[in-house]
Amino acid sequence: MKYATMRQSMFVLNARSDRRGLTEITESVRGWVAKQGIAAGMLTLFCRHTSASLLIQENADPDVRADLERFFARLVPDGDPLFEHTCEGADDMPAHVRTVLTAVNLSIPVSSGRLTLGTWQGIYLWEHRRAPHSRRVVMHFVGE
Amino acid sequence: MKYATMRQSMFVLNARSDRRGLTEITESVRGWVAKQGIAAGMLTLFCRHTSASLLIQENADPDVRADLERFFARLVPDGDPLFEHTCEGADDMPAHVRTVLTAVNLSIPVSSGRLTLGTWQGIYLWEHRRAPHSRRVVMHFVGE
Amino acid sequence: MKYATMRQSMFVLNARSDRRGLTEITESVRGWVAKQGIAAGMLTLFCRHTSASLLIQENADPDVRADLERFFARLVPDGDPLFEHTCEGADDMPAHVRTVLTAVNLSIPVSSGRLTLGTWQGIYLWEHRRAPHSRRVVMHFVGE
Repeated sequence: MKYATMRQSMFVLNARSDRRGLTEITESVRGWVAKQGIAAGMLTLFCRHTSASLLIQENADPDVRADLERFFARLVPDGDPLFEHTCEGADDMPAHVRTVLTAVNLSIPVSSGRLTLGTWQGIYLWEHRRAPHSRRVVMHFVGE
Repeated sequence: MKYATMRQSMFVLNARSDRRGLTEITESVRGWVAKQGIAAGMLTLFCRHTSASLLIQENADPDVRADLERFFARLVPDGDPLFEHTCEGADDMPAHVRTVLTAVNLSIPVSSGRLTLGTWQGIYLWEHRRAPHSRRVVMHFVGE
Repeated sequence: MKYATMRQSMFVLNARSDRRGLTEITESVRGWVAKQGIAAGMLTLFCRHTSASLLIQENADPDVRADLERFFARLVPDGDPLFEHTCEGADDMPAHVRTVLTAVNLSIPVSSGRLTLGTWQGIYLWEHRRAPHSRRVVMHFVGE
């Protein structure tokens, strides 16, 4: 993988969330990566929002996603009287905190034209607000 | 954005924190990026400390930052009898835990010479100790 | 550091964990980086698992690691009746949650052939399951 010419590509993925929860975007990401003609390199995803985040987690048993929701709902409850930033609703400040506790960006190496995700890893957009939102995820791919 | 020559720049940003809390560094980062003559690429920030972290969060309502402080002060209370690493003060081990729960690095794509931050996103250094500190953030920018 | 030819290297590090806890991998990472003939650039680590994570934390006082374990054991207790995904054991869903609360990837700039880690920073694989596991960490290094 050495001494070839490096180049890069960038694209903004629009992901629609219907409600609070995890939306898998693995296939959208994989499809875009496959079209860039870059066999080896680094893929970076960046979420342009402060109340939604990016996550890599198990994509087999859906109970895992339900349990993640339950855990975060208990850890950062909606309507917590601790919060003063409440003008946008009882779920707004919890959405910011959940974003802080998770990730705004992911970096995934690509080898032989494939994401190096493990067997059970899927890529998710995690909507933390209760209402539907349109979210933008910047994908950047550098390699050769 | 393809087939041009890739190059990189690096710089260490010194950020002064007066006390526990969030210090916005967006303008310092943006100013350095603008001077590198790289129109498109990937900016990475790396915090060289174990009791301070990097954060992207809302930069509009200051109540958000105050609520974040309150949430983390409740989740990881200073002086918690659970902790044995107390020789450097009641806020030392909580500062490590807060760093673990947040981020030591950020990756932000740059397009048309601009950070692709969302409308409400600002970049912050989060000081987790109570005393003032001088913190170093490595900025690395690769692109073309 | 400008205008030279960029190139990249990739390698999969196998890390053995004997039990839940932190295993330092700084020397393995540093040794591989030193052999790539790249003086300046960006190192990215990616963990290919959903129940283990990557961490940069203090490598001086071992009490810090013990306190981190105690904090996470209290925050995400094994056998929590909240969880429905229990078929793989009482520590399985807590391992997923701990992974979500920490990091699946790290980005560390390299300058003058050296990782720009701070004085007290070490790189760790954090095993969140109780049983021994073999974990794979992809290392990607791009620079010149």
